[in-house]
This record gives sequence, C-alpha cells and structure tokens, in this order.
Amino acid sequence: VSAHRVVVVGAGFGGLSVARHLGNQPDIDVLVVDRANYHLFQPLLYQVATAGLEPADIAHPARGILRRHRNVRFRSGEVTGVDWDTRRLLVKGSAPIPFDSLVLAAGARTATFGVPGVDEHAFGLKRLQDAVGLRSHLLRQFEQADADPTQVDLGALNVVVVGGGPTGVEMAGAFTELFHVVFARDFPRLPIHRARVVLVEMADELLTPFVRPLRNAARRDLYHKGVELELGRSVAEVDAKGVRLDDGRLIPARTVLWAAGVQAEPLGAALGLATTRGGRVVVGHDLAVPDHERVWAIGDLAASPDEEGEILPQLAPVAIQGGAYVAERILARDTGEQPRPFHYVDRGTMATIGRRAAVAQLPWGIRFTGTLAWLAWLGLHLIQLIGFRNRLSVLLNWAWNYVTWDRAARIIVDVERHPDE
Amino acid sequence: VSAHRVVVVGAGFGGLSVARHLGNQPDIDVLVVDRANYHLFQPLLYQVATAGLEPADIAHPARGILRRHRNVRFRSGEVTGVDWDTRRLLVKGSAPIPFDSLVLAAGARTATFGVPGVDEHAFGLKRLQDAVGLRSHLLRQFEQADADPTQVDLGALNVVVVGGGPTGVEMAGAFTELFHVVFARDFPRLPIHRARVVLVEMADELLTPFVRPLRNAARRDLYHKGVELELGRSVAEVDAKGVRLDDGRLIPARTVLWAAGVQAEPLGAALGLATTRGGRVVVGHDLAVPDHERVWAIGDLAASPDEEGEILPQLAPVAIQGGAYVAERILARDTGEQPRPFHYVDRGTMATIGRRAAVAQLPWGIRFTGTLAWLAWLGLHLIQLIGFRNRLSVLLNWAWNYVTWDRAARIIVDVERHPDE
Repeated sequence: VSAHRVVVVGAGFGGLSVARHLGNQPDIDVLVVDRANYHLFQPLLYQVATAGLEPADIAHPARGILRRHRNVRFRSGEVTGVDWDTRRLLVKGSAPIPFDSLVLAAGARTATFGVPGVDEHAFGLKRLQDAVGLRSHLLRQFEQADADPTQVDLGALNVVVVGGGPTGVEMAGAFTELFHVVFARDFPRLPIHRARVVLVEMADELLTPFVRPLRNAARRDLYHKGVELELGRSVAEVDAKGVRLDDGRLIPARTVLWAAGVQAEPLGAALGLATTRGGRVVVGHDLAVPDHERVWAIGDLAASPDEEGEILPQLAPVAIQGGAYVAERILARDTGEQPRPFHYVDRGTMATIGRRAAVAQLPWGIRFTGTLAWLAWLGLHLIQLIGFRNRLSVLLNWAWNYVTWDRAARIIVDVERHPDE
Repeated sequence: VSAHRVVVVGAGFGGLSVARHLGNQPDIDVLVVDRANYHLFQPLLYQVATAGLEPADIAHPARGILRRHRNVRFRSGEVTGVDWDTRRLLVKGSAPIPFDSLVLAAGARTATFGVPGVDEHAFGLKRLQDAVGLRSHLLRQFEQADADPTQVDLGALNVVVVGGGPTGVEMAGAFTELFHVVFARDFPRLPIHRARVVLVEMADELLTPFVRPLRNAARRDLYHKGVELELGRSVAEVDAKGVRLDDGRLIPARTVLWAAGVQAEPLGAALGLATTRGGRVVVGHDLAVPDHERVWAIGDLAASPDEEGEILPQLAPVAIQGGAYVAERILARDTGEQPRPFHYVDRGTMATIGRRAAVAQLPWGIRFTGTLAWLAWLGLHLIQLIGFRNRLSVLLNWAWNYVTWDRAARIIVDVERHPDE
C-alpha cells in the first residue's frame, strides 16, 4: 500500500504542530506548503520592528525545521485553489499536489475594517516584512527630522499605535523605550521629549482578555513610560500626516501601527468553504470542515469551537493544540473510532510592556506583574523559539539590550524584489 | 573663536577613519554625512549574500559608532552638490551645511563597463541591499526548481560569478559550500550535483594581485570545490536566461553576480572636480583636491598616488590610512608646515575560498595558504569589525556554521519602501 498523503497549508504554529506530530510516523507522507520559506515566531515580531532583534532570530527556515523528519517535505508557494473532485491542491508554479488528508492552517492577516487610509498609510504587524519595513520607516523619520528640525512640528517623531491588545501594548512600550533610551543618545539635537507615543483603543480598557488588576497594571506601566492613552476612542481616518480620531481631533504622526484586529487569510472563501464574518473557516467540534472528507482547518484560519460551542480566540496555543489534535485524528484514521471533540487547555496568557514590566495570567487564579512576570515572559518565549541557535542569539541580544540599553539592529534597509522574478 | 568645521562625506572605512582621528580634539567640529545610516563592513558582505551572517552583524549604526566622540555628529542624506563660493555642502532634505574643511570619502560602486544586460539581470555586491536581494533571489530559484523540476534544465540552480578578484573568488567558494552542504540537505529531491558555479575571469589567472603560488592555490581550491573556471574569457551579454561568453557559448543561469570591477561613486564629476576614467577624484601627494582649499578626497573615491606617482588600489587599508593622514593635516592646519606626502604601508592582503581554505600574502615575502591562512583571515576580520556585540555575534555565527554546516539566515525577505516616503 502507498503512504497516506497529508498536505498542510501553512508553516505557522498550527501547521508545524501537525507536521511534527506526524513526523517519522509509518505509512504517512507529509507536505507542508507556505508562501514564505520560514516559520515566523510572531510573538517577537514587535522586537524586530523596534530594532531589538534581527529577522533571522525569529524566522527559522522551514526546511531546516522539517528535514529532521524523513517523511515530511516542504514546498514554498502560493495556494491558488483546491480541485475537490480529484483532491489536489493547486499551488502557483507547481504541478497539482494530490492529498488524502488536507489541513488548512494559513493563519491570519491584519484587518483594517475598511477604515480609510489604513491600507496606504499604516503598518500592520503580521509578516516579517511588516516589521522590517516599519523599522526602516521609523528610523528614516528621525533621520529626516534631524536634518530638518521643522519636521518635528509636523509630527515626524510621533507614533500612533491603534489597538490595545497585547501587540499594541507591547509596541507602545517598546517605542517609548526605543525613543527615550536609544534615540535620545543617537539624536542629541532632537527634542526627543516631544516624540509622542499615542495608543488608541476603542474599548475603555487595555488588554481586555486579562483580569482587571492586570489591565490596570498595564495601563499604569504604560502611563509611567509616557504613553498617551486614548481609550474609548476609535480611528476615523489615517493619512500621510496623521490619524484623525472619531471625536475629530487630528494626531500628527508619520508612523502609524495598526494592531486593532486580524482577519483570517482569505483562503476559506477562495476554496469555496463556509466562513465566519472574519473569514474564518467554519469547522465542527472535531475541527473538520463540514461536507468535505478528511479536510481540517486549525489555528487563526479556523473558527474552532470549544466544547460549549464558543469560538476560541486566535492565539498560538489554540493553533498548536489544534494541530496536535488533527494529527491524532489522521493517525487514528483506520480505527473507525468516534473522535472525542477538540478540547483546548488554556495555560494562561502574558503580555510585556517593556523593561521589567509585564503581566501574566495563569490558570487557578495565579497572576503576577512586574519583574517576575517579565522574567516569566522572557523564559517562556525563549523556550518556545525553535532551534538552539535562535534561542542563543535571542538570549544574547536580550542580554546585550538590557545591559547596554542599546538596539543593534537599527539599520535602514529597503530590498526590492529582483525585476526578473 | 568658533570651532573648525570639518564635513566628511561617507561613513565607510575612510570617512570613519577621519572622524575617529578628529574625535574629541579641541576646537574641531566634525559632521559625517552618509546616504545609509550605518557603516557597512564590506569585506563580509559576501557572507550575508550566502546566508552565513545577518545584515546587522556587518552593518553598524553610524550614530552608535560616532556618539562616543562629543565633537562628532552624523547626518543621513544624499549629497547633491557643493556651493564652492560659500563653502557649503548641499544635502537633500537638509539646510546647506557650511564647512571649513571638506573630506570626500564616498567610496565606490559596481562598474558594469557597459556590458549589455548587467544592470538589469546581474547583482552587484557593494551595498547591503545587494547582498540581501541576492540571498532572497538565490533561495527563490531553488524553491521554484523544487516545485517545478523542469526549471533545473533551464539553469535555475546555476550561478555565474563574473570577476576573479577576491570578491569573485570568495563568492564562488561560498556558493559551492552553500549548495553542497546546506541546500543538499534542504532540497533532497533536487539534483544539487547539477547546480553549476561558474567563475568567469578575463585574465588568465585568479587573484592577480597575489603571487603565483597563491594564485595557483586559490585555483586548485576552487577546482576541488567544484567551481568551473572560465579564465581568459569575458562576458558578452547577460539576460534573464543566462550569460553569453565572448566565444559565443551561453551558460544558462538565473543568478549572476557581477564582481568584475568597481568605479568611484559619481560624486567627483557631480561636484565638477577632475576625475580619472574610473570616476576617481584626482588628488595630489597630500590627498588634497587641486585648486580647492582644504578639500581632500580619500579611499575608493580618490585616485591616491603613492610616492612614485602610481595610483593606489581601491582597498580598505588605503582608505583607513588616507583618513588618518587627512585628519593629521587638519589638526596641523595652523602650523604652516609643509606636508610630507601620503605614504601607504601595505600590510598584506588575504582572500578566503571557503571552509579552511584561504590565501594570505604579507610583507617580507611571508605567504601561507590553507587552514592557517583561513584562521588568520577569520581573526583579522573579527578584529576589524566595529563593536563588541558585532564581533561576538559574528564569532558565534561562524562557530555555528562551522560546527553544524548550517546557515541560519537563509530566509527570503523582500521589503519595499513605504509609499509615503
């Protein structure tokens, strides 16, 4: 008999989880397909955007990860569709790829909710090029203001962060540290005290998934770092000059980070599957796509229900556990047993606000803030990184940044694609 | 009295050498202007292109280097001209910058010599974006060939390196190691033995500045690594499919590195100064620009003569020593003493061919090859890197690459400039 062919779309947390759990299993061949040629450790993306880490610290070549499993292969390419009749995945630049089982784990992208000007003038923070582009853009604003100080009055040094979730909070904190610690020394003639970091959040509180004491701690920490909080406010429009709030005020700013929401990659609709309003693929309690045999969707792409039918949040642990669950379903394919429903175990959540400031909320009511939470956050993220080399490199960069108050990666690089491609 | 204002154009080896020698000197203000916001350690650029090092390992923020001197400032911007009457440097996006002394150290760029197709289809290797762009391009060729094996017949895996100087030799050696060590594991289904690395050199020998035994050693090492040598051959044309040699043969290749020559940045002509055929600014034995008071040109930008009137080569040590010489001239500005002519001390030259293979040629007839030369090369480059953090990072990356035969930075990233800029 020939091996069971599993095709996984996406090399994020979910896709890699499937591949690892099927790695070196008999009679199974796995092919992982992703547009990028690397697995991106998104939780540290904001540190690349603020020059604390280098891209290769958090982007691990997918082939390097997967080659340790003899039965797992990788292909870099854009998925254009599925031929459901012949059960083949269509990938640009490649022959159709037949599958017996298909796992969709394409992840999510920035959602702009149709707010005018966001696409053109704001940065998202989901892809590696978002972070590198934002870093260059921000450095360029400071360089230009140093050459022409009249730019300061036009908001060249200002940053608006939209969205008070973990990404927005982390970015706002990282921006103030970058400005007051690194740029204050780099640009001694610039009035860095006039560099505003404004955090806009539609709700009345930051970090809504956290309990109130932690939300308050985050708010206090950001306040002490000098972040201006605009809570209960939304963005009406973004243009090249700044951000207009819903109350009509204009915040002049050249750099706008849009961290107000994500939507699933548009793969579900492109494949003709039922999706939610956020583009997430509708799946059952077994994470299977209805009316399609042996097709699953997991992670940020899927609207995975918990046992009560509530849709789970778009978080890395949901994707990782979903991947393990689907791998188990695939391994049990011939047993005929009735699948137990997917059960998500919430092991807690954390967010960091900056140097020795973080909030952590664990099960059983355990919660802490400050240095302890910050150290826990550092340790957890270090462990979750893939590969000894990346862990060592991130650890050394963190130690360096902490001791010297420096950020080594503050270099402006624009790299355009070669015209022949 | 107000301080003597020195403006230095270029933050390369020459410009930094001037700034450092004038650092913390009384009654002197220095402003260094560069298009980039970093000093690039060009000798290791080829390792970024072949995924062995990360950009931030060899690009050090200029402000970080210069801020240790209280009297030295930096500005990032493009020089558009000089108003010679009022003695002011014109920089895009900035008010004119008055100077008492001006040092031109803008360096060199790739010279294509008008060969058709080189601009459009080949990569140079002088700027950081060249290296990052080449890395992405090469990785993409292998990914595409893995998805569509018919691409192999069209030369998707082939690389042509044009130019048999140190850069060409280093790149050719690094490509073969990348292919046979890293890609052979990453792409187990690709016929890596069919990935050709062809080195084209117009002269009959490689590394012409070296003595014959070292040239022969380099040639032998490259041959053993599987590099195809086309000596005594030049390139007639480059297009998207490959390289046509002067004997009419077409070498199919998607990746072409043009390392056949450099020309000075076009600053000399733009400023109306006398230049050589290669665009180098004509200077006297004191590195001063004739007919301009207190204006010097150094490094790759200048045609610096040695004591016999021979034009010195475009090498880092010439720029560094030229910078120190000009700084000394500026410090002695009021003494009225007759300047001794610039004297270049050749401390030797090295080139590396790959893992434990290099050639080194020192004064007094000392020369060696193999592991010893390779270790000397590693040590010398490590010492010359700026900053403890970069030295440590490069050392760790080298150790990692050597022990694991891996290259961590093999990620494809294209980052385009923000449309607002």
